[in-house]
Amino acid sequence: MTVPSTALFTDQYELTMLQAALRSGTAHRRSVFEVFTRRLPEGRRYGVVAGTGRVLDAVENFRFEPAILDFLREGGIVDAPTLDWLADYRFTGDIRGYPEGEVYFPGSPVLAVEGSFAECVLLETVVLSILNHDSAVAAAASRMAVAAAGRPLMEMGARRTHELGAVAASRAAFVGGFSSTSVLAAGFRYGIPTVGTSAHAFTLLHDSEREAFTAQVESLGAGTTLLVDTYDVEEAVRVAVEVAGPGLGAVRIDSGDLLVAAHRVRGQLDDLGARDARIVVTSDLDEYAIASLAAAPVDAYGVGTQLVTGSGHPTASMVYKLVARAAGDEPDAPLIPVAKRSTGGKLSIGGAKWAARAVDAHGVADAEVVGTGPVPDELADRLLQVELMRGGKAVAREPLEAARDRHVAAREALPLSASQLSKGEPVLPTRYTDAPA
Amino acid sequence: MTVPSTALFTDQYELTMLQAALRSGTAHRRSVFEVFTRRLPEGRRYGVVAGTGRVLDAVENFRFEPAILDFLREGGIVDAPTLDWLADYRFTGDIRGYPEGEVYFPGSPVLAVEGSFAECVLLETVVLSILNHDSAVAAAASRMAVAAAGRPLMEMGARRTHELGAVAASRAAFVGGFSSTSVLAAGFRYGIPTVGTSAHAFTLLHDSEREAFTAQVESLGAGTTLLVDTYDVEEAVRVAVEVAGPGLGAVRIDSGDLLVAAHRVRGQLDDLGARDARIVVTSDLDEYAIASLAAAPVDAYGVGTQLVTGSGHPTASMVYKLVARAAGDEPDAPLIPVAKRSTGGKLSIGGAKWAARAVDAHGVADAEVVGTGPVPDELADRLLQVELMRGGKAVAREPLEAARDRHVAAREALPLSASQLSKGEPVLPTRYTDAPA
Repeated sequence: MTVPSTALFTDQYELTMLQAALRSGTAHRRSVFEVFTRRLPEGRRYGVVAGTGRVLDAVENFRFEPAILDFLREGGIVDAPTLDWLADYRFTGDIRGYPEGEVYFPGSPVLAVEGSFAECVLLETVVLSILNHDSAVAAAASRMAVAAAGRPLMEMGARRTHELGAVAASRAAFVGGFSSTSVLAAGFRYGIPTVGTSAHAFTLLHDSEREAFTAQVESLGAGTTLLVDTYDVEEAVRVAVEVAGPGLGAVRIDSGDLLVAAHRVRGQLDDLGARDARIVVTSDLDEYAIASLAAAPVDAYGVGTQLVTGSGHPTASMVYKLVARAAGDEPDAPLIPVAKRSTGGKLSIGGAKWAARAVDAHGVADAEVVGTGPVPDELADRLLQVELMRGGKAVAREPLEAARDRHVAAREALPLSASQLSKGEPVLPTRYTDAPA
Repeated sequence: MTVPSTALFTDQYELTMLQAALRSGTAHRRSVFEVFTRRLPEGRRYGVVAGTGRVLDAVENFRFEPAILDFLREGGIVDAPTLDWLADYRFTGDIRGYPEGEVYFPGSPVLAVEGSFAECVLLETVVLSILNHDSAVAAAASRMAVAAAGRPLMEMGARRTHELGAVAASRAAFVGGFSSTSVLAAGFRYGIPTVGTSAHAFTLLHDSEREAFTAQVESLGAGTTLLVDTYDVEEAVRVAVEVAGPGLGAVRIDSGDLLVAAHRVRGQLDDLGARDARIVVTSDLDEYAIASLAAAPVDAYGVGTQLVTGSGHPTASMVYKLVARAAGDEPDAPLIPVAKRSTGGKLSIGGAKWAARAVDAHGVADAEVVGTGPVPDELADRLLQVELMRGGKAVAREPLEAARDRHVAAREALPLSASQLSKGEPVLPTRYTDAPA
């Protein structure tokens, strides 16, 4: 897959602000932008950072190529000095943030982008697009993983969301705890294991279900997964074992009352000697449906719509805000905190922030501590942000498995109530060590 | 922007079905797959077809390039004969469907893909991804356009959704009635007018709001839009008119009680002589918030999150089902209807369908009529499907404005209750002229 420039995943106001700031002379003021959310989706107990690795790629590929400059020139979107400036654009600043897979809470400084105003302001949209989308999917995936309690989860939602959003969703689902995906592009691009065998169309294509099963087993082997709910499940299971033998890999049930069906099919498979044949269920599952099947003889879940749409919360509501900037135009001007102050309820806290996760005497997390001043000694080894990019170069690339493992560890360090699916408050309070600016 | 192959926006089971069908000899049976939804999102009164133009692009770019074939080979996803078949893949079949912008209802055969089973089965995921995503956004856009009652709507949701999903969302929003977008890639790729001037960061970058406004006006002209809610709205409006003069283009309010603020700001602008300065509002708007501002002196709405996430319904739940296939392997075998028949509640109706929109004596639509048999004479000139692709070549490309105009016409031909934002039943019943197969 080619990696086209990401420079136009940008809202026009970022370029017009750049133009005006280049002209007023403020464009080069050192600035810190922070990404955070004011609240979690209603009832959610924690958020999951996902997309960080994609952010690093996007920033490195943020270049104004000739065709893009032509578009901006012909559309009269920015003036000639701005176009000249953009032609040489490369992000040369620093990015630090929560590592991928980490959990977050309202006010957590998930990402901080530092450099000149000009180079940082341009990244707002693409950074937020990635983090908002991917974190929303990862949060849903994490809840489903809690509900599945160790049984494998397969991501199957590509058909329910934008075709490239689907690939990012597979990646985020993997971070959140899924083990495989149906969509081949996610295997190609990210190395996520891909799965899939057949749909109802394959059965309907053949003159009988037996012919379809025979064709599938002859081609894919007895270890394949046969879809048993095209006509009559009981009959299909009988034929499946006849055709594949007791070594049948699995059957998939994609409709009906999955709880009842799973018990019946398990009993029937056992009676037919196919004791090792697994049962896969896939039918509009969400974390609640998965939890309700905990006691059923289900071996794996395939999840689509509710996963890729964030199980009711398709975006993470993160924002990208200027929190500090140089006090003047001298090269050594100190950074001063800045924040919107209108009475509209969208308050922000100025100043570049650190964050640490405080723990109780048992090592269980008990607060998300956020501050702009000195870090208290007892939190010095509990800091959450890591260096992600230095001087425009990514310094924290890692395999996706590392993010996946980190998420499990972070979730397990939370209070037990993090695993409740019911609506509630964030499991950790966010504590600010400084008065709001 | 490059157009990479779309061939991996595919669920693995499409390839394994292909492999098994190539081996069983059924792969070449002529087949018809239909795209439809079993229900509209809860409470919605109509759906909006969007993405059709993107589907044509995706099908034409669906090619298994060497790097893709290597991936499939190395992953052992399909066997050698299947790889050989894929290497030459081009879709050579026919596609017909509802033209883009048309409205649809439960059971409407929105798209029909006809060709060999092998060439059609591969398109399931990419076709559904596009139609499900784009139609969900267009439906939300259409409701917002009804609520805005002619005032311009600006799409500003890129930061809330996947970066490429955002570009498709801008396109779908335009089809649904939006007039512009903030995201530059949508201007570049689809020619949608782009808008945007400044964010709070620009004000905070400067040493005072006055300096920020002055910088913006000097660079972008007095006709620009000044953001007035960083500190104190009343003070900001006063400074804005002082700096830009009475020819100030517009002010934007992004927080607070927009109804109250719009009235106050209008009065203040008028008092200051800036009678032509427009008021733009942007703050977590949805169709209900837009409707609630109908009587407020607002000139344009900027909408983000709720638009790109389908205002509560981020996917359109369309499915892609085999509805007819050749009765045997002879080249002239007739098509026979096929349908899933299990008791799980996911019933489909077999057979390739036509659809027509019946009207009452006043020319107002009163039913979506769907059938597989002969078209009744009185519906012959009310048929909804058009030819979109013939022999693998797109035959119905059109400017995006055509889809946008078509949507307005289609919506206006619906019963008046289509414009109610409250939850209700689809405004048209779907009537089947044949008994379900």
